[in-house]
Amino acid sequence: MKWPVHGSNPQYIYEALNLPMPHQTIDFSTNINPLGPPSNLKEKWAELLPLITDYPDPHALSMTKSLAEKEGVIPSQLLIGNGGAEIISLIGRLLAGKRALIIQPAFAEYEEACRVNGCAVEYFQLQANEWKLNEDELASKLAQMDALFITNPQNPTGVYFAREQIIHLLQACCDNDCYLIVDEAFYDFVSTYEPIVALINEYPRLLIVRSMTKMFAIAGLRLGYLIANARIIQELKSYQPHWSINAIALKAGEWCLDEEEFIEKTRTLIDEERAKLFSFYQQNDFNVSPSQTNFYLLQDGLKDDQRPLFQFLLEKGMIPRHTMNFRGCEGNWLRFAIKSPKENRQLMEAMAEWRGN
Amino acid sequence: MKWPVHGSNPQYIYEALNLPMPHQTIDFSTNINPLGPPSNLKEKWAELLPLITDYPDPHALSMTKSLAEKEGVIPSQLLIGNGGAEIISLIGRLLAGKRALIIQPAFAEYEEACRVNGCAVEYFQLQANEWKLNEDELASKLAQMDALFITNPQNPTGVYFAREQIIHLLQACCDNDCYLIVDEAFYDFVSTYEPIVALINEYPRLLIVRSMTKMFAIAGLRLGYLIANARIIQELKSYQPHWSINAIALKAGEWCLDEEEFIEKTRTLIDEERAKLFSFYQQNDFNVSPSQTNFYLLQDGLKDDQRPLFQFLLEKGMIPRHTMNFRGCEGNWLRFAIKSPKENRQLMEAMAEWRGN
Repeated sequence: MKWPVHGSNPQYIYEALNLPMPHQTIDFSTNINPLGPPSNLKEKWAELLPLITDYPDPHALSMTKSLAEKEGVIPSQLLIGNGGAEIISLIGRLLAGKRALIIQPAFAEYEEACRVNGCAVEYFQLQANEWKLNEDELASKLAQMDALFITNPQNPTGVYFAREQIIHLLQACCDNDCYLIVDEAFYDFVSTYEPIVALINEYPRLLIVRSMTKMFAIAGLRLGYLIANARIIQELKSYQPHWSINAIALKAGEWCLDEEEFIEKTRTLIDEERAKLFSFYQQNDFNVSPSQTNFYLLQDGLKDDQRPLFQFLLEKGMIPRHTMNFRGCEGNWLRFAIKSPKENRQLMEAMAEWRGN
Repeated sequence: MKWPVHGSNPQYIYEALNLPMPHQTIDFSTNINPLGPPSNLKEKWAELLPLITDYPDPHALSMTKSLAEKEGVIPSQLLIGNGGAEIISLIGRLLAGKRALIIQPAFAEYEEACRVNGCAVEYFQLQANEWKLNEDELASKLAQMDALFITNPQNPTGVYFAREQIIHLLQACCDNDCYLIVDEAFYDFVSTYEPIVALINEYPRLLIVRSMTKMFAIAGLRLGYLIANARIIQELKSYQPHWSINAIALKAGEWCLDEEEFIEKTRTLIDEERAKLFSFYQQNDFNVSPSQTNFYLLQDGLKDDQRPLFQFLLEKGMIPRHTMNFRGCEGNWLRFAIKSPKENRQLMEAMAEWRGN
């Protein structure tokens, strides 16, 4: 059987499992803000229509300037991308013919971006159920490497590594002339997040990947960015197609930069919902990863095979993310986004029903 | 002085020339349908808002299926792209380390896409003022080549090469194991256009690049596609970032596939306006390229240096496209889009004023 590589677009998972797709579904496979896009963006949607006709600014100057101010960097240290996926794809080109170490389990994109560019890939496996990072053990693997990929908070576990751990890794990468790529796609969902942006001035091999599509629920528009040394930005920009970021994403992205209150509100909601969910799971013998962000791994602690639970949920229209293509998970866990209180409650009801079976 | 590489975004040309940008401007530098987007798309704009939240279909199945039906190909012979520019960028990767011949003058993108992939570039120069294609002379240059780029209708001249000329080139490319890349970005503006799509079955090295952003005035959304052999499509898809085409472009693009009447209306308008403009230019000693599409090259037949005319027009808020980075043009011509009757009239009035100076 061929498992779909990504969450979202659930038609592909029903098709792969040869299951009819219920009319009513809740998609827990995609880690998007349950509040949806900021209301400002929805209210001003009509203002975006006139932007569809003309070419977007190929240099994304206005967005770059606003973002640089917000992040405390200079514009030449920023590259806006057509989603975080484009940034990762461009990083793959930087690593052509080199060797990369990927902390696993991880988003499949890193490996694909490396392989298609002839970059050899090795893995550093985090161990279930705690998914802890042993920096010293990791550092000892870097001598033969040109790049290290880490997602923080980690995907699919949601585990967040503290700033001092990242600095430890940075130092080890620095000692080995190795790039450190920190994918912070979900950083803004973490209440205890400590910024690392200022480190790019000290560590010219640090690349920080960001996505704006998760927090602002604009995955359909595509918008991400890279913060790094100006030389790296310049090289990656040379690989990027012209007008790669569409005009709607650019303008919507600028609006989103002002949404501090919306981000705060989201974090509070996620923290509250995670507490509720995790308390329920603990009481009902489900194991979860110690997530600090808006998704988590789950397994039925009373069963070895998680596939029947997966199928049970799909049949009920509750769509988890399978973990067949996450190394170290291989289907032994299911990933869930933290969604609205109502949707999370429906999920817990389904889980209670499963437990009662 | 550093000339902006592309038309559109006129702030860059005023900045480069250190000219204040008038409040009222008409941008003739970008070859977009003067009718704007189809009214259906504008009326249904609000329906697109719900699409911004979820990831777009990474396989663009629905759009690909509709487009395949319309073009009479199978879905595996199609690749949808984030604008024609992304398709060209991906073709550059196909040509990594190879040698390409570019028919000049041409869109700067081909050369950039080749160079950034280590593909050596040579030029086959069309001669002003007729810009005729000598296929036999061209064929004799192909022995050392891996690819030939041609734009049809040609950019920036607007000259259209007949189907039999393209077949002649295809045969020559076939004899030399050489890809033929035909960029048909403006094909749908040409009343006398003869389809070449069916030839991909006979010639596995034919690549046809299309853009939907010009005819449907959606340059801000980004949408283009490639028609070619399934093997080529598969290779290029492996280089494409995930979710590269945003959800708004995909849905708008599907709607546009039904707009046959809109295309007819556009072609009629363009043909009528071109006739008016060219008659005026002939009477007033301006030379134009024998365009069959929605833009043309122009020079003041009474002056050697075209820069004063360029500056005169910019100061009046009429923005032509400079040709400094089109080989064989080097500023001796200016390119103009054919715009609405009112805008074209304003341009002719400005030209009459220039002539009267």
